[in-house]
Amino acid sequence: MTTITILGAGAMGSALSRPVTDAGWDVRLWGTWLDDHLVDAIEAGEPHPRTGAVVPSSVRAYRSAQLEEALDGADVVVMSVASVGVPKVTELALEGISQADALWLTSKGFCPDEAGRIQLLPDAIRAIAARRGATLPPLVAIAGPVKANECAAGLPTATIFGCRDGEVSRRYAAEAATPVYAIAHTDDEVGVEVCAPMKNVYAIALGIADGLGEATGTPHHNLKAAAFAQAVREMSLLGARLGAHPDTAYGLPGVGDLEVTGLSGRNKVYGVRIGRGEEPREALAEMDRLEQTVEGVPAAGLARTLVDQLGGGLAEELPLLAAVCAILEGVPDVQATVAGAVLPRRG
Amino acid sequence: MTTITILGAGAMGSALSRPVTDAGWDVRLWGTWLDDHLVDAIEAGEPHPRTGAVVPSSVRAYRSAQLEEALDGADVVVMSVASVGVPKVTELALEGISQADALWLTSKGFCPDEAGRIQLLPDAIRAIAARRGATLPPLVAIAGPVKANECAAGLPTATIFGCRDGEVSRRYAAEAATPVYAIAHTDDEVGVEVCAPMKNVYAIALGIADGLGEATGTPHHNLKAAAFAQAVREMSLLGARLGAHPDTAYGLPGVGDLEVTGLSGRNKVYGVRIGRGEEPREALAEMDRLEQTVEGVPAAGLARTLVDQLGGGLAEELPLLAAVCAILEGVPDVQATVAGAVLPRRG
Repeated sequence: MTTITILGAGAMGSALSRPVTDAGWDVRLWGTWLDDHLVDAIEAGEPHPRTGAVVPSSVRAYRSAQLEEALDGADVVVMSVASVGVPKVTELALEGISQADALWLTSKGFCPDEAGRIQLLPDAIRAIAARRGATLPPLVAIAGPVKANECAAGLPTATIFGCRDGEVSRRYAAEAATPVYAIAHTDDEVGVEVCAPMKNVYAIALGIADGLGEATGTPHHNLKAAAFAQAVREMSLLGARLGAHPDTAYGLPGVGDLEVTGLSGRNKVYGVRIGRGEEPREALAEMDRLEQTVEGVPAAGLARTLVDQLGGGLAEELPLLAAVCAILEGVPDVQATVAGAVLPRRG
Repeated sequence: MTTITILGAGAMGSALSRPVTDAGWDVRLWGTWLDDHLVDAIEAGEPHPRTGAVVPSSVRAYRSAQLEEALDGADVVVMSVASVGVPKVTELALEGISQADALWLTSKGFCPDEAGRIQLLPDAIRAIAARRGATLPPLVAIAGPVKANECAAGLPTATIFGCRDGEVSRRYAAEAATPVYAIAHTDDEVGVEVCAPMKNVYAIALGIADGLGEATGTPHHNLKAAAFAQAVREMSLLGARLGAHPDTAYGLPGVGDLEVTGLSGRNKVYGVRIGRGEEPREALAEMDRLEQTVEGVPAAGLARTLVDQLGGGLAEELPLLAAVCAILEGVPDVQATVAGAVLPRRG
């Protein structure tokens, strides 16, 4: 039996415990030092506070001080903490990770190194391991249109596993799938990784179109659809510049994940506020007060830094990213700014 | 000044009169024998009954008996009638069309020939012209995420012109664009044409996911997003088999138009009814009673015929099309049928 240790007992980590349990795996769920209240609920058999679903009773929960025990003998380790926590948890868990057959990664984001250069998380993890002289097992990037609460509730869910060694992602995609948790696979790690933070940025733009509709009483569906198509195009272009296959963004990690992110979620809600006419920085402060983290906001800034870093005219090919950044900084005419970025140009 | 004659005074024809007027063209709008009440409203300066927008006062309206006059001296003729009316209107207007510089086409659909073989509308029009010994000017297929009411209201709209002669689509895209009506261009006529009827089929599936959410009280966003990604993939595959560029479906005609069609419209509404638990044939009869034509229903059957006609294992590559057809025929477990079609398969 495969033993899997999920690091992070939040929404996505606890949700993932459901399909791998159903697939017959031995599942451990480790909570960080921020997750004690979540582990309390899991141990009490109560619904998880973030997903509303009860974690399967066979899942063993571990608290932050029990990391070594949680990792002991694990075949697969899953990094499933907030992206800001990835470097620290990687350091803490490195020995256990290096002894596993694979490191899966559901955490997503851009990670600046000490010199301020933007990396994707797999490269950040590799850099930490290299500095420590540790050998990593194959890394499997996991993304796609997965709302944690639906996955945890056993509703039909499609995801994608990406590993540089395509045979590894193929094998785990077969072994961890259930009738309702289906897994595509690819060898395009970068393509899978880059779409995840970018879709949060672009979901703000989709929300803006919805908000413009609310503010004016006339839906802006044409604008939203044009923004959707442009967002997918930009994810493909950015991925390609980082070495991804351009088509990866046209499947589950791009088109699929942008669709689900644009249906609900904090990035979209934040965009709606802006589209309705709220001042972006005030709206963000209000969401902060409500403890609603808007991941697309820092991602937009980091993405712009990455694009500048890549150079070669890439910035001009990503006008919607530039438009979202300008709007977050308070540019006055939101509708014209989005339209100017997503409507085809003459010529 | 370019003179453009739009054949069909319905939602899309009347909506198109707005940007071409704003582009400075001389615009004529001809109503079919079914459009007299629409022409009445246009001539009275009242809002168009289908879009809610007033047609620009400089647009000259013509009634069905005035076809010859409407076409006299037209530089561009636009076919903008319901797809079932295209053959008849082509016959009636053939002389005027053959004297124009271009035939634009906003009508969309699959058109069976007399032997029952499925054609796209441009080929159906070409066949009629060939039978009559008439020479057609270049044909420009027009698609993309355009809700007519928003276009008519002057809201930001992106569309795409596809002509086998890419220089023709490029030129008209430049000449007919306005700051709010922006036009991409391609030489992929087939790619533009095939997505339009298919997105109506797939919008039913998106609606089903919404309806399942309503029926169960739990959103099925993961399923909807997986269906969206699969739909785009199937449009690309079908287009490629017909000679289209596979990427055309990943832009405005596929991703963009499916997004806008999935946001509202009759196909989506019909899908919601099915997802909620209504029997598909009864729900369709009810929508017929409400005079709500669901274009995706006949399109699904015609698409299946086309796929069978193309052969070569294509049917197996389009499981979501098969699932929609099965659901329309009353297969019992709608959720499992959609999930079985859109979740990645093991292997």
